[in-house]
Amino acid sequence: MKIKRVCILGAGTLGTRVALQAGLSGYQVAIFDIQPKALENSQKLMQKIVRQLANNSGLDDVAGMNAIAAITFTDNPNVAIWDADIINESVTEDPEIKYAVWDQFGKIAPEKTIFTTNTSFLLPSMFAEISGRPERFCAFHFHDVFYSKVVDIMPHPGTDPSLIPVLMEFGKSLEQVPVVVKKENPGYLFNSMLMAFIGAAGKLLTGEVASIEDIDKSWMVNFHMHMGPFGILDSIGLDTAWHVTNKLPDQASQRFAALLKAYIDKGKLGEKSGEGFYKYPNPAFRSEDFLL
Amino acid sequence: MKIKRVCILGAGTLGTRVALQAGLSGYQVAIFDIQPKALENSQKLMQKIVRQLANNSGLDDVAGMNAIAAITFTDNPNVAIWDADIINESVTEDPEIKYAVWDQFGKIAPEKTIFTTNTSFLLPSMFAEISGRPERFCAFHFHDVFYSKVVDIMPHPGTDPSLIPVLMEFGKSLEQVPVVVKKENPGYLFNSMLMAFIGAAGKLLTGEVASIEDIDKSWMVNFHMHMGPFGILDSIGLDTAWHVTNKLPDQASQRFAALLKAYIDKGKLGEKSGEGFYKYPNPAFRSEDFLL
Repeated sequence: MKIKRVCILGAGTLGTRVALQAGLSGYQVAIFDIQPKALENSQKLMQKIVRQLANNSGLDDVAGMNAIAAITFTDNPNVAIWDADIINESVTEDPEIKYAVWDQFGKIAPEKTIFTTNTSFLLPSMFAEISGRPERFCAFHFHDVFYSKVVDIMPHPGTDPSLIPVLMEFGKSLEQVPVVVKKENPGYLFNSMLMAFIGAAGKLLTGEVASIEDIDKSWMVNFHMHMGPFGILDSIGLDTAWHVTNKLPDQASQRFAALLKAYIDKGKLGEKSGEGFYKYPNPAFRSEDFLL
Repeated sequence: MKIKRVCILGAGTLGTRVALQAGLSGYQVAIFDIQPKALENSQKLMQKIVRQLANNSGLDDVAGMNAIAAITFTDNPNVAIWDADIINESVTEDPEIKYAVWDQFGKIAPEKTIFTTNTSFLLPSMFAEISGRPERFCAFHFHDVFYSKVVDIMPHPGTDPSLIPVLMEFGKSLEQVPVVVKKENPGYLFNSMLMAFIGAAGKLLTGEVASIEDIDKSWMVNFHMHMGPFGILDSIGLDTAWHVTNKLPDQASQRFAALLKAYIDKGKLGEKSGEGFYKYPNPAFRSEDFLL
């Protein structure tokens, strides 16, 4: 089948970015949100991203603005879903909200529509049945669309395998590297690895083996990266990291969760709150003499 | 104290590189090995590295060759240790050999000499006593000197704290980023984090969650790196990784160790044997279309 029309559910950070990339890739796009204000902000964010891409990646500014102008921003479910070949759902990461959305759109979507969820930590099998078409339901998970260009394709046990190559091609057409997660796995592939090394960094810190700065330096210099684990945690958000870490039963994770909680209780959530392990907007690890 | 004269014990890959950097940084250097052939190879490796640095990093070729010419290559312990301000020991990663070396050099070293070991996985406390000067004994661990320019400074409980700033300055003068490992920790800082994320990658593979290639792609694209965990394993050597993984008691590590062992039993040790998870010299992950 040929995907032409794309319906994005949820006009938050990720939904906005997916919708924009779909527009830039030549798809007909509708983006839905129940809050008109969210749709307004979504359009502004798209304009900001297009200007950034024009400055940094040589995107044609006019082509970008035209792509945004061609996108349908709507709070009307029937308008959003009209003639859609695929849904990519990015609504709030709350099982009850996602459940309600799939219940609603499962009933009104055209027969041809493929259903995909962009959930970060939940599993597609949680929403496959309520959508009414479990065999055409799959996770299709973006990272940030324009910087980390990878998309996870994660079927649940009832997904029709013929959907995988369709989603692979669709992912490539959106300039993403598609990877297949053959079994349901919370956090897909990257988050499993990310949280493992961040957990190891947390263990070094709570065990008083080394300082935040020295742990980050070790990672940055060895991997020639611009951030180490604590810089990464600041960008993820300490609250988000706490939600994951706190659920792990082992002692090291619990100790690290307690340390994260102490920061959170002081309002230190990371870059978004102005302070986490480092102070923003000019954290030490970005200064030129950090690695001297 | 001012370090002027450096004694490197062991003319293998790492000892050779540390000796060369010390020479390039203006120190008087002696490198010792019991095998004359190793000393010969060490000199050739230094010449090769100087040519590479001249091509890639703008090192002056003549200055580099002069630095090598000024280095004393010797199989005579008394020549090696003469007037040494510091020893950095990089002999074979075998506790008995290191023990014998520190017993020997502890007896003949000048009183002023600082003792440091470049061990990868052993602990300085294992050799501090036999060296005869535990308070002046510390781990000083390089990664690869010219690409990953970080040096771990890891005291044992009996190390005189005043040694740390001296080693920090010495590390910086060798163009390394010094990081302090405040407590003895096998694998220092980086290896703890490296093995954690590689273990997570191994778990994804043995759990049949995703393919080698897709796991690597996920890491490479998200972190903008040239290698993923399985490419990294190929460069570390599957045998080395097995030695570490096999010692971990948890089921996931044991399953991954068994998988590594199956590769090793087929002679697939990684890049050095021509094949590991990928085939060399042109592994798939280095091809231009790997991320398409």
